[in-house]
Amino acid sequence: MEYNGVTIDDEYAEAFPTWVSRIIITAVTEDWAYRAANEATGFATSAIGCPCEAGIEGFLSGDETPDGRPGVAILICAGKKKLKEQVVERLAECVLTAPTTAVFDGLPEAEERIAVKLHFFGDGYEYQKEVGGRKCWAIPIMNGEYVGEEDFGIVKGVAGGNFFVMGENQMAALMGAQAAVDAIAGVGGVITSFPGGIVASGSKVGSKKYKFMPASTNEKYCPTLREKVEDTKVPEGVKAIYEIVIDGLDEDCVKEAMAEGVRAACMVPGVVFISAGNFGGNLGPFKFNLADLF
Amino acid sequence: MEYNGVTIDDEYAEAFPTWVSRIIITAVTEDWAYRAANEATGFATSAIGCPCEAGIEGFLSGDETPDGRPGVAILICAGKKKLKEQVVERLAECVLTAPTTAVFDGLPEAEERIAVKLHFFGDGYEYQKEVGGRKCWAIPIMNGEYVGEEDFGIVKGVAGGNFFVMGENQMAALMGAQAAVDAIAGVGGVITSFPGGIVASGSKVGSKKYKFMPASTNEKYCPTLREKVEDTKVPEGVKAIYEIVIDGLDEDCVKEAMAEGVRAACMVPGVVFISAGNFGGNLGPFKFNLADLF
Amino acid sequence: MEYNGVTIDDEYAEAFPTWVSRIIITAVTEDWAYRAANEATGFATSAIGCPCEAGIEGFLSGDETPDGRPGVAILICAGKKKLKEQVVERLAECVLTAPTTAVFDGLPEAEERIAVKLHFFGDGYEYQKEVGGRKCWAIPIMNGEYVGEEDFGIVKGVAGGNFFVMGENQMAALMGAQAAVDAIAGVGGVITSFPGGIVASGSKVGSKKYKFMPASTNEKYCPTLREKVEDTKVPEGVKAIYEIVIDGLDEDCVKEAMAEGVRAACMVPGVVFISAGNFGGNLGPFKFNLADLF
Amino acid sequence: MEYNGVTIDDEYAEAFPTWVSRIIITAVTEDWAYRAANEATGFATSAIGCPCEAGIEGFLSGDETPDGRPGVAILICAGKKKLKEQVVERLAECVLTAPTTAVFDGLPEAEERIAVKLHFFGDGYEYQKEVGGRKCWAIPIMNGEYVGEEDFGIVKGVAGGNFFVMGENQMAALMGAQAAVDAIAGVGGVITSFPGGIVASGSKVGSKKYKFMPASTNEKYCPTLREKVEDTKVPEGVKAIYEIVIDGLDEDCVKEAMAEGVRAACMVPGVVFISAGNFGGNLGPFKFNLADLF
Repeated sequence: MEYNGVTIDDEYAEAFPTWVSRIIITAVTEDWAYRAANEATGFATSAIGCPCEAGIEGFLSGDETPDGRPGVAILICAGKKKLKEQVVERLAECVLTAPTTAVFDGLPEAEERIAVKLHFFGDGYEYQKEVGGRKCWAIPIMNGEYVGEEDFGIVKGVAGGNFFVMGENQMAALMGAQAAVDAIAGVGGVITSFPGGIVASGSKVGSKKYKFMPASTNEKYCPTLREKVEDTKVPEGVKAIYEIVIDGLDEDCVKEAMAEGVRAACMVPGVVFISAGNFGGNLGPFKFNLADLF
Repeated sequence: MEYNGVTIDDEYAEAFPTWVSRIIITAVTEDWAYRAANEATGFATSAIGCPCEAGIEGFLSGDETPDGRPGVAILICAGKKKLKEQVVERLAECVLTAPTTAVFDGLPEAEERIAVKLHFFGDGYEYQKEVGGRKCWAIPIMNGEYVGEEDFGIVKGVAGGNFFVMGENQMAALMGAQAAVDAIAGVGGVITSFPGGIVASGSKVGSKKYKFMPASTNEKYCPTLREKVEDTKVPEGVKAIYEIVIDGLDEDCVKEAMAEGVRAACMVPGVVFISAGNFGGNLGPFKFNLADLF
Repeated sequence: MEYNGVTIDDEYAEAFPTWVSRIIITAVTEDWAYRAANEATGFATSAIGCPCEAGIEGFLSGDETPDGRPGVAILICAGKKKLKEQVVERLAECVLTAPTTAVFDGLPEAEERIAVKLHFFGDGYEYQKEVGGRKCWAIPIMNGEYVGEEDFGIVKGVAGGNFFVMGENQMAALMGAQAAVDAIAGVGGVITSFPGGIVASGSKVGSKKYKFMPASTNEKYCPTLREKVEDTKVPEGVKAIYEIVIDGLDEDCVKEAMAEGVRAACMVPGVVFISAGNFGGNLGPFKFNLADLF
Repeated sequence: MEYNGVTIDDEYAEAFPTWVSRIIITAVTEDWAYRAANEATGFATSAIGCPCEAGIEGFLSGDETPDGRPGVAILICAGKKKLKEQVVERLAECVLTAPTTAVFDGLPEAEERIAVKLHFFGDGYEYQKEVGGRKCWAIPIMNGEYVGEEDFGIVKGVAGGNFFVMGENQMAALMGAQAAVDAIAGVGGVITSFPGGIVASGSKVGSKKYKFMPASTNEKYCPTLREKVEDTKVPEGVKAIYEIVIDGLDEDCVKEAMAEGVRAACMVPGVVFISAGNFGGNLGPFKFNLADLF
């Protein structure tokens, strides 16, 4: 099929379960909440080489946060045990240390919970305090008091929703990917964890030549290898491909993010082809057909 | 002494050796180089809980980079073994995956070297290529080719240069800290690895109450505990304290950064006191007297 | 009354009618739409010395714009004749000249209309085209085609909704004002036209000393003159005051913006007093009581 | 000739004299100085339809400003009489009104001077004050005191230095133009006054069809009209063109900006042709050959 003159491949994205935590970071201004969130979600593009996948889900006004201050919601995704460890470390090192922050659970209805006991940092000077109906700990620190919840909901979400933006040259593909990321930023419940939300280098499992490598370049999607790789997936005339990878709280929001992202990419001149990545359908329980997005 | 009406404490910062790598990330525009650098230096505030300390050292024009494109220089700091591991992982996950990036060694004259063999990702399709006199590998990826050096200099640098910005209230201290970070951004060879460059929660080694804690709040620097802690270091009238922690390539640049930062903080109305942190002088080999900065 | 420990003065804001145009600027990405909007709304803080008042109302997703691309809505406010002139000039010089932009009427239901005939720029090469149900002109330009509507709704709106954020020192007041502006950014139908949304220097009509001046500093609101001016309006302990001035499409949205802004400012430590500005109530037909905002 | 595989046209840019004022705006942080500068340089793309041309020249550290605070240098360009009027209005409405600002002359050695007597706004409460060796006026305002010089140097500079970035499609040309603007930002003494520094719609003097139009689209540079316009200047294969227009303090800095900008644009994949604009050489006294830039 076609959308706005762009070919939409007859393909589907294959995605996987992951555990997800949603954390609300508030601060004196939106900018300071953002800086803490940015630090806390760095070095978290892919669970393959990073300790977790993480990103900014969205911005919250004071009306939407427990303490009435502007906030940023982040998602952290990983296996269950790793998730708790990463939430603890990232809150302790990147948010408790950041100016004027407070932290609240972003999934108060979730049944599964993890405990993040930062209050021991208070060395006995800490005390309990209710903020906006939430049971928090206040910890005396240099800039006054850090306030935070310590009980966080986690849910089984979806990792690896994806689509490919293919362009007649690199800049067209890049701007198409950028437009997609902009559009996805407006969808609740999802993140795009790669740098700027965009993946420039796709991988396949293992390596044909270097047996010690757990993953290597996916030559089928490399435009410069189009003539050399027999079963290339690079359509004629495509000179660059970017992948948008989406993690989210559930199938619905990942699907909505894919739909918004694909449509936005198709509005950018020079974007010529949209596809999606899967592993034949036997690995991941979630399937998102590109055709179903429209 | 006083500077611009602000009391400068008769104290010194005590700092420690660390191994430092300096990496130049270039991209099609400054903004895209920044996004890769931002992802690669996230979750890297403090070596205590993060796998390394990292940050953006500065921006480079096309005249200053091997491939003539705009760039961002980052520093990654850790123990020698951890440093290599972190450089490999952060380049592999956060820069190789980012749109249009290339990577170059930022310390070509350093004698100590680490090898970062990303080219195995190319699965045999990679090839060697010279760029601006640098020996690089070109790896076919989805957006075209990733180009990078694989041999990086490391030097024994300085971690933990620091000073405290104390304010008559929280916002004065915060803006003073912000002005300091702005000024330090203009100094070469250094980073401020905390969120937005600023530390809101200082720690002491261990804990008096919770024996299992390796570190806990430094109650002597907590304004809300001023009346409760006998040997408080919070001057009268101080309501909030931020610490600026500086890592750098050598003593000189850390000293310059402290000088620029302190002077800038003192220009902000409501900043009333500057001090520095040390452990009595027996732990760290580097000492930076505040008085020597002027 | 008090809110979050901050005194809310028993005062009201007095506001005035103005004609308002709402224009939607779209572009290939949100960032490029923003840059055009930013240029088009510059040098437009106050109708006293600038040719109009203008600002960014908000960001729009592709679902909310006629051409399916990301957009920015701006408001331009002035007297009726001046308004048309300013819309023509600002669209011609700041949006038609900007990369990838298109322009659409943001008040399609308004009865009063102004014609903005940019298509003459096409020198005969222009042609009519429908986009998203809107009757547009496409003008060949260097980067391809500029597309835009030429018939814009205008409404009688409200100029000069306002409140004062007063702080125990300058940085507290500034961050309080910043938090207010952040909060108001989330309210539809309004702008804060001053630099960063904040006014640092309030004025009174005329001058006591310099008869040729149409306006001069409002000494009653100058903290440094508190002891010298008999009828000072600066409360004891206040060292700095910022004013937030709001223009909007109607009374309701200006009131909502005031409410959101005041509440946000009151969350910032060191903000101690909120008031509002009026001229005794005889000049402006709109009155917004601070007490009614809660 | 060619540079990095891009054809450099055998053309020259023709530029014109203009009067230029250079003003240094400082503030409590770099960000606040930027916001005032951004407002003060808006609606100032082209002298044809805007009251002046203006833009941000660069950022200054505290070491480089009279009051030791971070600053932004802006250039305002216009005819002599208009220049004074615009400097007065833009400082009065966009800088005096902005939080924490101070203003200093950025051309203290210039012989020609203009007086910008903002101190009358003080209504007699103002007083003289020396700051960093500069004779200033301090005016009591709501956020404390505004401090500024009132005597500004102006010089005869250069307006209209330019080059065209032509791409095989729109996004390639746009990113090439963006890279050029990034590079020019590092050159002292110049501005690029259009939105984001980039011109999407070039004009010719007058109009063939609409006699009342002082300027209209330059059809020779319109890619969509390539087949319809006999003397088209659009090379084969070019689908989009952006122009970078540079104003500066003198010929040398405009030439350097052109050189840096052209080189940067040529690094972007998909940029295929660079040219420059002139009027046959009889109108402007300054000529910048593209060939001389390398």
